[in-house]
Amino acid sequence: MDHQLSLFYGLSFLTVVLAFAFAAYLYLWVKKQKTVNKRIEEVSLLIKQGANTFMRREYMVLGKFALVAAVIILILLPSPIWTGNVIDNISMTIAYLAGTVLSAIAGKIGILVATLSNGRSAEAAKEGIKPAFLIGFRGGAVMGLLVVGCSLFGVAAVLMLTGNASILLGFSFGASSLALFAKAGGGIFTKTADISADLTGKVELGIPEDDPRNPAVIADNVGDNVGDVAGMGADLFDSNVAAMASALVIAQSLSGGEYSNISMVFCYAILGLLSSIIGIATARIGKNGNPTRALNSSTYVTTGVFLVLTALATAVFEGFSWRIWGASTVGLLVGVIIGITTDYFTDDSKPIVRKVAHASCSGPAFTVLSGVSYGFISALPAMVGIAVSALIAYQICAPMGEGYAIFGISMAAVGMLSIVGIIIYNDAYGLILDNARGLAEMGGLGEETIRTADELDSAGNTVKAVTKGFSIGAAGLTVISLLGAFMSEANVALVNAGKEAISGFDIMSPTVFFGTLIGAAIPAVFSAMLILGVDKNAQRMVAEIHRQFNTIAGLKEGKEGVKPDYDKCIDIATSGALKELIPAGLMSIIATVIVGIIGGPLAIGGFLLGNIVSGLLLALFMSNAGGLWDNAKKYIESGEEGGKGSEAHKAAVIGDTVGDPFKDTAGPSINTQITVVSLVASLLSTLFVAFSIFG
Amino acid sequence: MDHQLSLFYGLSFLTVVLAFAFAAYLYLWVKKQKTVNKRIEEVSLLIKQGANTFMRREYMVLGKFALVAAVIILILLPSPIWTGNVIDNISMTIAYLAGTVLSAIAGKIGILVATLSNGRSAEAAKEGIKPAFLIGFRGGAVMGLLVVGCSLFGVAAVLMLTGNASILLGFSFGASSLALFAKAGGGIFTKTADISADLTGKVELGIPEDDPRNPAVIADNVGDNVGDVAGMGADLFDSNVAAMASALVIAQSLSGGEYSNISMVFCYAILGLLSSIIGIATARIGKNGNPTRALNSSTYVTTGVFLVLTALATAVFEGFSWRIWGASTVGLLVGVIIGITTDYFTDDSKPIVRKVAHASCSGPAFTVLSGVSYGFISALPAMVGIAVSALIAYQICAPMGEGYAIFGISMAAVGMLSIVGIIIYNDAYGLILDNARGLAEMGGLGEETIRTADELDSAGNTVKAVTKGFSIGAAGLTVISLLGAFMSEANVALVNAGKEAISGFDIMSPTVFFGTLIGAAIPAVFSAMLILGVDKNAQRMVAEIHRQFNTIAGLKEGKEGVKPDYDKCIDIATSGALKELIPAGLMSIIATVIVGIIGGPLAIGGFLLGNIVSGLLLALFMSNAGGLWDNAKKYIESGEEGGKGSEAHKAAVIGDTVGDPFKDTAGPSINTQITVVSLVASLLSTLFVAFSIFG
Repeated sequence: MDHQLSLFYGLSFLTVVLAFAFAAYLYLWVKKQKTVNKRIEEVSLLIKQGANTFMRREYMVLGKFALVAAVIILILLPSPIWTGNVIDNISMTIAYLAGTVLSAIAGKIGILVATLSNGRSAEAAKEGIKPAFLIGFRGGAVMGLLVVGCSLFGVAAVLMLTGNASILLGFSFGASSLALFAKAGGGIFTKTADISADLTGKVELGIPEDDPRNPAVIADNVGDNVGDVAGMGADLFDSNVAAMASALVIAQSLSGGEYSNISMVFCYAILGLLSSIIGIATARIGKNGNPTRALNSSTYVTTGVFLVLTALATAVFEGFSWRIWGASTVGLLVGVIIGITTDYFTDDSKPIVRKVAHASCSGPAFTVLSGVSYGFISALPAMVGIAVSALIAYQICAPMGEGYAIFGISMAAVGMLSIVGIIIYNDAYGLILDNARGLAEMGGLGEETIRTADELDSAGNTVKAVTKGFSIGAAGLTVISLLGAFMSEANVALVNAGKEAISGFDIMSPTVFFGTLIGAAIPAVFSAMLILGVDKNAQRMVAEIHRQFNTIAGLKEGKEGVKPDYDKCIDIATSGALKELIPAGLMSIIATVIVGIIGGPLAIGGFLLGNIVSGLLLALFMSNAGGLWDNAKKYIESGEEGGKGSEAHKAAVIGDTVGDPFKDTAGPSINTQITVVSLVASLLSTLFVAFSIFG
Repeated sequence: MDHQLSLFYGLSFLTVVLAFAFAAYLYLWVKKQKTVNKRIEEVSLLIKQGANTFMRREYMVLGKFALVAAVIILILLPSPIWTGNVIDNISMTIAYLAGTVLSAIAGKIGILVATLSNGRSAEAAKEGIKPAFLIGFRGGAVMGLLVVGCSLFGVAAVLMLTGNASILLGFSFGASSLALFAKAGGGIFTKTADISADLTGKVELGIPEDDPRNPAVIADNVGDNVGDVAGMGADLFDSNVAAMASALVIAQSLSGGEYSNISMVFCYAILGLLSSIIGIATARIGKNGNPTRALNSSTYVTTGVFLVLTALATAVFEGFSWRIWGASTVGLLVGVIIGITTDYFTDDSKPIVRKVAHASCSGPAFTVLSGVSYGFISALPAMVGIAVSALIAYQICAPMGEGYAIFGISMAAVGMLSIVGIIIYNDAYGLILDNARGLAEMGGLGEETIRTADELDSAGNTVKAVTKGFSIGAAGLTVISLLGAFMSEANVALVNAGKEAISGFDIMSPTVFFGTLIGAAIPAVFSAMLILGVDKNAQRMVAEIHRQFNTIAGLKEGKEGVKPDYDKCIDIATSGALKELIPAGLMSIIATVIVGIIGGPLAIGGFLLGNIVSGLLLALFMSNAGGLWDNAKKYIESGEEGGKGSEAHKAAVIGDTVGDPFKDTAGPSINTQITVVSLVASLLSTLFVAFSIFG
C-alpha cells in the first residue's frame, strides 16, 4: 500500500472519530433539554415502544434472511468455494454481514434520535421557533453525522483489510439488501397506518389529523419513525456505500490500480463529511427567524465549503486530477438543478400544485388524472439532468485514458452524495418536526404551539424537495457506474473461463434487447407489489378501526377516560408489513438470476439498463406525484378552493391517499431495488458466465 | 424486376380488388337492412352529422400540418434538395402525401361503416341475437377489408413505382403522423364527452348511461365514432404499413437485394388478407347462438388458414425460407399468448377484476391504487412475450446470414399483423354494438332489446382483449425492426459522408445512454399531455352541462318536448380536441430532432430504445389498467359488492373515469408515437450525420 493511500485511510478514521464526537456532543445537548408535559411523555413512550417492537420483529425476519444469504455467499461468491480461494469467500461473507449490521445500526440510530427529539421539540415550540428548530436540527444532525460516519468507516475498513474492491461489492450488497427489505417493511407499515388513520379520521368522522380518539394515531406516529426515519437512514447509508464502492471498484481496475484514484475517492468522502460538520456548526437562526432560510443556508455553506476544499486537495495532492474535480462538480451542480425543478412541481407557491388543487373542484378523478400527468412530466427535467451530467462527466474524463470516463461518472455520483450528511439531517429534521407537531396536538399544547410546529414542519417539506433531487440523481449516476463495474467483473469471469471479453452491450443484439425489455418491467412489478401490500393491509386496519368505533362506547364522542386500543392497530400494521416485505425484493433478485441464467452477461447488461431507465422514470413519477398531491391537499386546507370540508378537499384527500404509497413506499424503494439488482448482477457474474443457456 | 416479384405485385392488386368487391357486397347487404324507428333515425343522423363536422374540421387542421411537412420533406428528404436527386425528393413527398390521404380515408371508412350499421343493428336486436350480430359483424368486416386492402395497395404501389424501399418510409411516415394526430384528437374528443356525460349523468343525477336528457349524450356517441372507430382505422392502417415497410426496407438491404425476400413480404400480406376473407365468409351463428364463440372461431379459422397457406407458399415458391415461416409463426403464437394473459387481467370472470371491485368497497383511493398496481403487473407477461419472440425469431433466422436475424424479427411482426383484418373487424364490431346499445336506449326499444344489445356488446369487449395483444405485440416487434431500419439508413448516410459506419449501439457509450434516458421520458410526457388535454376539456364541458341543467327549465325532470343543447357540447369537445391534438405529437417529433442534433445517430439509437421500452411499458399499463377499471365497474353494476348506487359503485366509477383517458386516449396513442419517432429518426438520419454536435 502506498503512502498517500495510508494517509487517507488514517484521515478517514480520524474524520469518523471527529464526526462521532461531534454527534455525541449534539446528542447530549438534545437529551439535556427539559420535558415536563406528562401526556407528551406518555405518548412519546408509546411511540418509542411501538417502534422498537416493530424494529425488533423486523430485524428477526431480516436476520434469518441475511443468514441464509450469508451461507449462499460463503458457498458461491466471489467464485464457487470448490474452485477458488476459500479466504475470499470468507471475506466476502464477513463483508456482507458487516454491511447488513451497519445498515441495521443506521436504522436504529434514526429511531433513537427521532424518539429522543420529537417530544422535546414539541415542548420547546411553546417558547417559539428558535428552541424547537434547534432541537430538530441538532437531532437530525446527530443522525446525519453517524450514518455518514458509519459508511465511511465501513468502506475504509473493508478495503484496508482486504485490499480487494470486489469484496466491497459484498459489503455494499449487505447494506442494500437490508435497506431494500427494511424500506419495504417500514414503508408498508407507515402507509398502512397513515392511510387508515386519514380515511377513518379525517374523511369519515372529520376529526383532526392527530386526534387521540383515533385508534390508528399511535401506529401512524410509529410508522413515521420506522418507515421514514429508519428507512431513510438505511437508504442513504446504502446509497453512499454503493456510490463509494462502485467508484472504488472502477478506481482499482484503472491502469494497473494507481493508488491516487483510490485516495481521491476517500479524500472526497472525508471532505464531504468535514463540510457537513462545518455546515452544522455554523447554522444560525434568530429568535423568530426563518427556518427554511436557516436550513438552506446550511446546505449552501456545506456545498461551497466542499467545492473549495476539494479544489485545494486537487491542487495539493499528487495524482489528483482537475478533470475528476470537474466531473464531481458537475454532479453537485446538476443535483441542485434537479432539486430546483422538482421543487417547481411540488411547491404550493408554484402553479402546478394550484392547478391540481383547482382540478379537485371537479372531483377526485380529475385530482388523480392531473396528478398522474404532472408526475410524468416532472420526470423529464431530472432524466435530462442525469443524462446530461453523465455525458459531460464522461466527456471531461475520457481524455485521461481507458476506463477514466466511467470513473468520471462514478465521481459525479460521489460528488452529488458528498453532501449526503445534509440530505439526512434535513430529512430527519422534517420527520422530527412532523412528529413534534403530532405530539403538540395530542399533548394539548394549544393552538399557538401547534402553529409554530406547523411552520417548522413545512420548512422541512420545502428543503426536502431540493435534497431529494440529490439522492435520485446520485442513484442514477451510481447505477451507471455499477453497470461499468458489472462489465469489468463479467470480463474477469469471461477471461478466466477462456471466453472472449465483451466490449459493451449492443442494443441491436437480441440477447441485450431481451434483457432490456424484461428489466424495464421489473420496477413496475416491484412497486405494484409494495402498493398492493399497503392496499391490502390498510383494508384490514380500516376494518379494525371501524370495529373499535362501533364497539367501544364513548370513543367516537371523545368521552373522558375512554381510550382506543392502540396496540391492536400497531399489531396489524406490523404483521402485515412483515408478511409483505420479502416477496417484492426477492422477486427482483430472482428475476435477475433467471435472466442471467437464460441470457448470460449480455442479457444482464440489457436487464440492468432497462431496470435503471424504467426505475428512474417510475421513482421520479411516484415521488413527485405523491408530493404534489400532498401539497395540493395542504393548499386546499389552507383555505383555497373551498377549504377544509369542501368537495375539492375530499377529492384532494383521495389524491393524497393514492400518493401516500407512491411517495413513501414504492417511489423511494425503487432506487434501492435498482442498486440491489446491479450488485446482484456483479456478484453473480461468474455464475452467469459459467451456466447461461443462450449467453 | 424479376418475374417472381412481378407475380406478387400482380397478385397483391388482384387480392385488393377481391377484398374491395367482397366489402362492397357486404356493405350493400348492411345498407339493405330496414330501418323504421323515427327516433333512432333522428339520433343516428345527429351522430353522423356531429362526427362528420368534427372529421371535416380535424382534417382541415391536419391538412395544413401535412402541407407544411410536405414542403419540409420536399426540401430535405431523403437528402437536402441541393445535394441529391430531385426526383427522389419529389417521390418522397408524393409518397408522404399518399400516406396521409390513405390514412384519412381509413378513418372516414370507419365513420361511414359505423354510422351505417349502428342504427340498423339496434333495430335488428329487437328480433334477437342473430340478425343484430350479423349487421355488426358484416359492418366491421367491411372496415377490416377496406383498411387492410388500402394498406396493401399503397405499399405495393409505392414500391412498384419507385423501386426504392426507403421511399416507403416516407409513405409510412405520412400514415403514422396523420394517425398520431387523428388518434390524439379523436381520443381527446371521445373521452371529454364520455367522462363529462358519466360524471354529470350517472354520478350526480343517477340517470342511465345513454339518457337523452343529458346534453353530452350525443357528443358521447359522436366520440365513439371519431375517437374509437376512426382512430382505430387510422391506427391499424398505420401499424400494418409500418410493419410491411420496415420488413421491406430490411429485405431490400439483404445481400444485394434478393427479390425473393421482398416477394415473401407481399406473399404473407396477400395470404393474410385472403385468410381474413375466408374467416369472414365462413363465420356462422345460430339463431340465439353465442356471439363470443362466433367471433373467436372466426379468429381461429383465419389464423389456421394463414398458417397452412404460408406453409404451402413456402414449399412452392423458390427462395422462400422455412426459417422465415418459423419466425412469422412464432410472432402469431406469441400474439395469442399475449392476448390470453391480457385477458386474465381484464376479464370479470377472472380474479383480478373481482379484487379491484372488492377494494372499491374501501373507497376510491383503493380502487385507484389496486388498479394501478395490477396494471403495472399486467405489463410483465406481454413484455416477456415480446422479448422472447424477438429472441427466438432472431435465433431462428440468424444462421441465414448477415441481416437475416433482424429480417426474421420484422417478419414476426408481419406474422402477428397478418390477421390485422380480424383485429379491425372485431374492434369495429364492438364499437358498432356499443353505439347500437345506446341507440336502443335512446330510441326506447325496450328492456329486452337493450339486454340483447348488451350481450352482443360484451362479446365485443371480450374478444377485443385477445386481438389487442396482437396489435401491441406487433408494434413492439415493428419498432425493433425499425431500429434496424434506422441503423441501415444511418450507415448509408455515414458512409456517404465519408465517416465510419456504426456496428451497433453500445449502452456503455454515454451518448447512447444519454439518448436512452431522454427517450424513456418522452412517452410519459406525451401521454401526460394527452391526459391533461382531456382533463382540461372535460372540466369545460362539465361546466356547460351544469349550466344547461340549471338554466333549461324542465330538462332535469325529463319534461316532454324539452331538449338539451346537444350542439354546444359537441362544439366544446371539438374545439378542445383541435386545440390539444397537435402539441403532444409535435413535442415527440421535436425531441427526436433535438436529441439527434445534439448526439447524432448514436444518441438516436439510444433514444429509440428508451422510447420503445418505456412506451411499451406505459402503453400496456394504461390500456390494461383502464380495461380493468371499466370491467370492475361493470362487475359491480351486475349486482356484486353492493351493486349500482353503492359506495363501492361510486368508487368504481371514479376508477373508470381515471381509466378512460388511460385506455382510450393515451394508451393506444403511445404505439403510434413510438412508430412516428422511429420513422422520423430513419428519415432524418442524413441530417443527424451531417449536423450533430457530439455525435
